[in-house]
Order: sequence, then structure tokens, then C-alpha cells
Amino acid sequence: MRASELFSEINEQPAALQRFLDAESANVARIAAPIGRADVRYIVIAARGTSDNAATYAKYVFASFNRLPVALATPSLYTLYRTPPRLEGALVIGISQSGESPDIVAVVEEARRQNAPTLAITNFADSPLARAADHVVLQHAGEEKTIAATKTYTTQLCALALLSTALADDRARRAELDAVPDAVARTLALSDAAEFAASRWAIVTTMLVIGRGYNYATAFEIALKLKELAYVTAEPFSSADFLHGPIAVIQGGYPVLMVAPRGRVFDDLLDVARQLKARGADLVMISDAADALAPSRAPLALPVALPEWLSPLVAVVPGQLLAYHLTAAKGYDPDHPRGLTKVTRTL
Amino acid sequence: MRASELFSEINEQPAALQRFLDAESANVARIAAPIGRADVRYIVIAARGTSDNAATYAKYVFASFNRLPVALATPSLYTLYRTPPRLEGALVIGISQSGESPDIVAVVEEARRQNAPTLAITNFADSPLARAADHVVLQHAGEEKTIAATKTYTTQLCALALLSTALADDRARRAELDAVPDAVARTLALSDAAEFAASRWAIVTTMLVIGRGYNYATAFEIALKLKELAYVTAEPFSSADFLHGPIAVIQGGYPVLMVAPRGRVFDDLLDVARQLKARGADLVMISDAADALAPSRAPLALPVALPEWLSPLVAVVPGQLLAYHLTAAKGYDPDHPRGLTKVTRTL
Repeated sequence: MRASELFSEINEQPAALQRFLDAESANVARIAAPIGRADVRYIVIAARGTSDNAATYAKYVFASFNRLPVALATPSLYTLYRTPPRLEGALVIGISQSGESPDIVAVVEEARRQNAPTLAITNFADSPLARAADHVVLQHAGEEKTIAATKTYTTQLCALALLSTALADDRARRAELDAVPDAVARTLALSDAAEFAASRWAIVTTMLVIGRGYNYATAFEIALKLKELAYVTAEPFSSADFLHGPIAVIQGGYPVLMVAPRGRVFDDLLDVARQLKARGADLVMISDAADALAPSRAPLALPVALPEWLSPLVAVVPGQLLAYHLTAAKGYDPDHPRGLTKVTRTL
Repeated sequence: MRASELFSEINEQPAALQRFLDAESANVARIAAPIGRADVRYIVIAARGTSDNAATYAKYVFASFNRLPVALATPSLYTLYRTPPRLEGALVIGISQSGESPDIVAVVEEARRQNAPTLAITNFADSPLARAADHVVLQHAGEEKTIAATKTYTTQLCALALLSTALADDRARRAELDAVPDAVARTLALSDAAEFAASRWAIVTTMLVIGRGYNYATAFEIALKLKELAYVTAEPFSSADFLHGPIAVIQGGYPVLMVAPRGRVFDDLLDVARQLKARGADLVMISDAADALAPSRAPLALPVALPEWLSPLVAVVPGQLLAYHLTAAKGYDPDHPRGLTKVTRTL
């Protein structure tokens, strides 16, 4: 197979993450001070697509470690409906690698009009989003040439994690972040295992992806990669919501990917895995725990166990690799998904 | 075909909605007063499954008319992780028809511990959720015997709409609510059209459901019914998120249901419909607008146009009917979906 730009960018993630931590740590510490002085009671995040999955990760991080509830903005209220809510007490964060989507920019602009503190997480310093916000955290991912976001996703997760440690002035968690680039580098060794899992699923057109807690976001992001690249209708679920109805679709041979690294939600996911096996689902597991990997015929064994709050930074990697290899196995072009453009401008 | 309990309950919705409005209007007006006096800056809602779709509707209603942002709670932070956020400034609402799910109860109990005002929307006055909350809005839907929620969904929407009018002391919108039971009754006449649409899709196992704005919730709820009842992997999207990647899965003959009643997001949905047709998707439209219905080979023409903020109460009905008829066309039992129970207890 000829060299794929996507595969290169997946492999650039350790370098991008290291570059981000080196370049932005001081800036984020500086930004945290004025935000800490504002009367912030909760956070509103505006984002679309992959960035929205990073926002889902943020819900868990900011609630757990900063005790701040996170609301995902509904941009159409700011654009099409023109009935934005009051944002008193909110810190408003816009996340967009391009910084171009007008709906995301509109939320941040409205927040500034209302004098709420605003922050942009973007890969482009001169983008409309960066210009609209009080504070900017740059991703330093380097240009992402392919359509499907990979290194811009993990650098967004890293930016949110870093911001959480800075807002809490938490040096212990800040130190844990330093292990991320190397952990991602070692996780890239799962490419062959992902290729094997992809070979078994080469004719799959529908599947489910299940995660919970911090890795609820990982399930969403892997499902999005599978849709964008391999044209698989992959639907993401939390294991709890899954039991409230959707489990009915499962029958013998139904392909299910589970994201289950060790942590507080692990037993819960293991229980769902047992129910899925009992119904004959074809399970592929992403985990660092032997008992989770055992029932899977194509296990994706995470070689490094990061603390649970950072596990999404490694757990997404085998999913990116699976989507890449599945795309190749199906004979599609991973660098040019049909009908997508790098920058999507929605209102 | 023998009489189905589900079909009966779908048809009971006008009576259930009228019963709800008659029984709860005075109570909700009374509840609004103390909540109005509290320093409420935003709302947190805890819900699962169908009730979570009602919560999505609430995001639009409370932001537009009460200017209150809504955050959907992440219950695992309260249960498995035991790191609940601070809820100062929040009104916390739990929605559950049974009032039994421990994770939803846990969020409301934590809010009470923190002295945040709490409200339960449930069908059962003596449920754990009702006992945990400061204020209770009862759905009065009558017992729902089948697994798939229908009349308990529309009465939850109606409860949220009524609460919004009471919190805003908005008599004009309160008067608009009185038209809902009759509008739902007239929309039930779409059963034959839904049966025709179902007959065309009898072998479908994968589809997408697209809505936006107020009817983003409708897309989620119809997709859930299709999964629970007809075992179709139906994935819901906002038209904006859909363009940020997932549109790649569409090819000739791909089944897509769109929820597009007239309103502020209508032109946006019509534009997505054109893109879908250009890719050869097999489109079924729920709308009250002739230009939206025209490209659909199995149109579901809403006979009554409610104001946009109330349109989800009618727009979901043809989706319920489609799910019911598709289940029958596939030879499944609509009253007893495999592997589901009426009350799901998750942590």
C-alpha cells in the first residue's frame, strides 16, 4: 500500500503532544489566574464534530477536578434562533482546530458581549475563533493535511487536561501529563493488532462503540473516525444508556467495540461485556486489563496504563488505527473521504 | 394482526396530555414562585434513555424563553466516581417516568445536600425520585404497560414546556399549550402513511435520523424507538454535526428520516435534504411544508402546524407510528422487545 498521510499523522501524535506541552504550559498557567478571579460557577463549551468529543471529555475532567459542571452549547440558539441564554457565571470555551466555524465563533462573540470570560482552543492563532476570545490556547499540532482529525483531537484533550490542572493549581496532576507523549508513542505499536481486527471486520457496515466516564468521549471519537473514513454506521453509547433500550439491537455476530481501560467504571463495562457475549456479539476490546481482553477474539491491549483521567489520550489511538486499517481493508482512500472538506462552516 | 398495547398507548397520548394539563397547571405555577426567588443561573438535568431526549428538548426551551443554559448531568460523576461538581446557582431537575433509576436519584440527592433547588418530573408520586426532590411534577400519563415509552415521552415534553411558561410567567405561551392535545390527536391520522413508509423499509437494518433545534430531541427519540422496537441501528444527528463528518456514510439507497417542520432551522434542513438527495439517499420526511415533503417517496405530512417550540410534541408521533409499523412489518413483537425491562436501574 502506498504511504498514507493519515497514518503519518496518527504517528505524529507523540511529537505534537510534546510540542504542545513545551509551548503552552506557561501560557495556560498565566491564563488560569484571571479566570480564577472571575466568579465562574460553570463552563459552557461550543464545539462540533471531533472538537465536540473533546468537549465531552472536558465534562468529566472539569467536574471531577475543578468541581465545575459543563454545559455543551447549542449553537443554533446563538445563530439561527437568535435567542442566546444569559451567560452570567459561565466560563465560555470554543474548541475548533480550524477556528473557522461561524456557529462556534458566534457563541464566543455573544459571551464577550455579555462580559463572560472566554477562551479558544484552536490550532490557528490568526483564526476568527482565536480573535474572538479573551484567551487563546494553541494546539501546536502542526498542519493536519487529511480530513479526519487525529493529532488535533489528542492535542485538544491535552489542552483541556492542562487547563484543568492550571485552574486547580494541581502540580501532581500536571506532572502526570508529562507521561502522555511517551505513552501515546508506545500505544502506536498496536497497529498490527488493529490491522488484524480490521481484517476480521472488513465487510462490517454497522457497529456499536461503547465507553463510559472519561472514555465516553473516546467511544464518540472512534465512532466518528469509523464513519468518516470506513463509512461504517458506528454508533457510540455510554454503557448505562445502552442498557436503557439500545441493547435490543444486539444479536449473534453483531460487531461491538468496547473502550474499557481500568478505572472506576471498569466493573460496569465488564458487566455489559458479559451481557453482550451472552447475546453472541462479536466483541473487540480496548483495555489494559487481562480480564477485559480475554473474551475478545481481536484484543487491543493497551501497553501503558495512564491514570484514568488521562486514559482517553491513549485509548483513542487503537481506535484511530482500527479505522485506518478498516478503511484500507475496504479499499477506500483514508486521506480523501468522500464528500468531506477539512473546514466545515455551519451556522 | 392482533391488537397491540403499544399502538393503544400511542393513541392514548391526546388524553394523557389533556389529563396532564388539567391536573398540573396550578401545581406548576405554584412551584415556579420559590424557584424564581432562588438565584438560578443555569439548569442541570439528570435523565436516561427517553427522558434524556426530553432533556435535550429542555435545552432549547429554557435557553430560548428563560435565558437559562442547560447542562445535562453526567450521573457517573455522582455514583461511580463520587466526584460531584458544585451546584451553586443551578436548578437541578431529574426526569424519569418510573422514578427508580438510582443514578438519577443520586444526582437529585446530591443537589439537595448542596442546597440547590430540585425538581422531579415522573409518572409515580411515591417513587424514590419524587421523594428525593423539593418539587414534583407528575406526568399523569397513566400506567405505561409496554417497554417502549411513548405517552410518557410526550407528557415529559409537555411538563417541561409548562414549567418554562410558569417560570417566565408567560401567558401567551401557556395558552399555546392548550392546542397540543387536539394537534396530537389529528397527527395520529398519519398511521396509514407511516405503515406505507414502513412497508418500503421492511428490510432496513441501518438508518440515520436528522433533526435540528427543538426537533434535535425528536430525532433522538425516534431513533431510540427504531432501535428498541424494530432493532434498526438508527443513529440520530443534528444537521450541523452531520455535515462535520458523518455525511460520508451516505450512498445510493441509504435510508434517512428527516424531522423538518417549518421554523428557524427549516432552510438549513432543506439544504441538507438536497445534499442527501444528490447522494441518492432514500429520504422520508416529517414536515408540514410542501417543499420539504416533495423529495420524499413516503412523506409524513404533519396535518397541524404548532408554534415551532411545541412542534416536537406532534413531530415525534409519525416517528412512533413508523417504528410501530416497521416492527410489525419485520414480524417482531412491539409489546415485548427482546431483552428490555420497563424499569432500568443503572448506576
